[in-house]
Amino acid sequence: MKKGLLFVISGPSGTGKGTVMKHLLETGEYFYSVSATTRAPRPEDKEGVTYYFVTREQFEEKIAAGEMLEYAQYSGNYYGTPKSAVEKALAEGKNVILEIETLGALQVREKMPEAVLIFILPPDIETLRARLEGRGTETAEVIDLRMAQVKREVALLSRYDYAIVNENGKALEAAEEIMLIAHTERLLTKRNPELAKNFEEYIS
Amino acid sequence: MKKGLLFVISGPSGTGKGTVMKHLLETGEYFYSVSATTRAPRPEDKEGVTYYFVTREQFEEKIAAGEMLEYAQYSGNYYGTPKSAVEKALAEGKNVILEIETLGALQVREKMPEAVLIFILPPDIETLRARLEGRGTETAEVIDLRMAQVKREVALLSRYDYAIVNENGKALEAAEEIMLIAHTERLLTKRNPELAKNFEEYIS
Repeated sequence: MKKGLLFVISGPSGTGKGTVMKHLLETGEYFYSVSATTRAPRPEDKEGVTYYFVTREQFEEKIAAGEMLEYAQYSGNYYGTPKSAVEKALAEGKNVILEIETLGALQVREKMPEAVLIFILPPDIETLRARLEGRGTETAEVIDLRMAQVKREVALLSRYDYAIVNENGKALEAAEEIMLIAHTERLLTKRNPELAKNFEEYIS
Repeated sequence: MKKGLLFVISGPSGTGKGTVMKHLLETGEYFYSVSATTRAPRPEDKEGVTYYFVTREQFEEKIAAGEMLEYAQYSGNYYGTPKSAVEKALAEGKNVILEIETLGALQVREKMPEAVLIFILPPDIETLRARLEGRGTETAEVIDLRMAQVKREVALLSRYDYAIVNENGKALEAAEEIMLIAHTERLLTKRNPELAKNFEEYIS
């Protein structure tokens, strides 16, 4: 069976990538990899659905054993992608999709060079700021911090394969672009080494 | 203005790439580059439409001046792609499409690394042989020579970006695959260096 493709989606907070992900997952054609974390579960959390909840010791054992595809610490907690579930889904021919931040994405690229890295951008910086302000949940200071973060993230754009601009109200179109990428990536000769072999063997 | 993309289409004789090309050109979205040749015009030829007819001296002057994007000799005649028309169309934002054989395609890759190389394959070797035999114009010896040529061409498949299998009677679908590739290639970060700049400049 043909292996699935691994998609890594990143994008600054406020790009609407959550909505894009939702559309992709609704197609049923993508396996969503559930992250592991050491943070305490919240009332809305569901083990194995929102996260796999593990202890700090367990997480560090997995890192040491090379079982994390990527990981990072935020506010003193580990977050990361367990490798085994991803590899199993890919081996079963499923496309896997990870929504992770830029440094995690680059770790994935390192360990699985065949991954497809996609960066979702807002149409422009004013739109991004307006979206963050529109949430009404963030203070001006937090928004400034986020904007500085955006700059750091966008500086890594060239390390991604594709960039998709998520226009206002066009998350479905952005999801469709990703589906087109999934289609054309499968046509790459590097993903079809058996094609040439088929012909070479049969021509004497 | 955004530069156009250069597509190079190759594929063994009998893959039906002529029909695929026809469908692509009918969209009006691709500029077809007319080749130059030193062979004598035939009654059905039209200067500047089927070929640009030049003398051997003129062709060799163009080679010496670096004005041929790629060229080769067949049966004692030169055939090649003049660079200036391709560059002009690309600069005007048009997608350019060249239908050339493998060695010419690799010359283009060398001179224009940003070109998109697409190889069109028949579904399998028996189909290819049947298509060549079905033409009824080729002797068994010529068909054997063509099959040996196929082997040499397919050996270069990995130097192409994409491989498209042209199933029987599905040339339109193959052309549509190429149009999808044209779409997703435009989303590659390497083709959009201005995206990151736009954000970096506006975030202090």
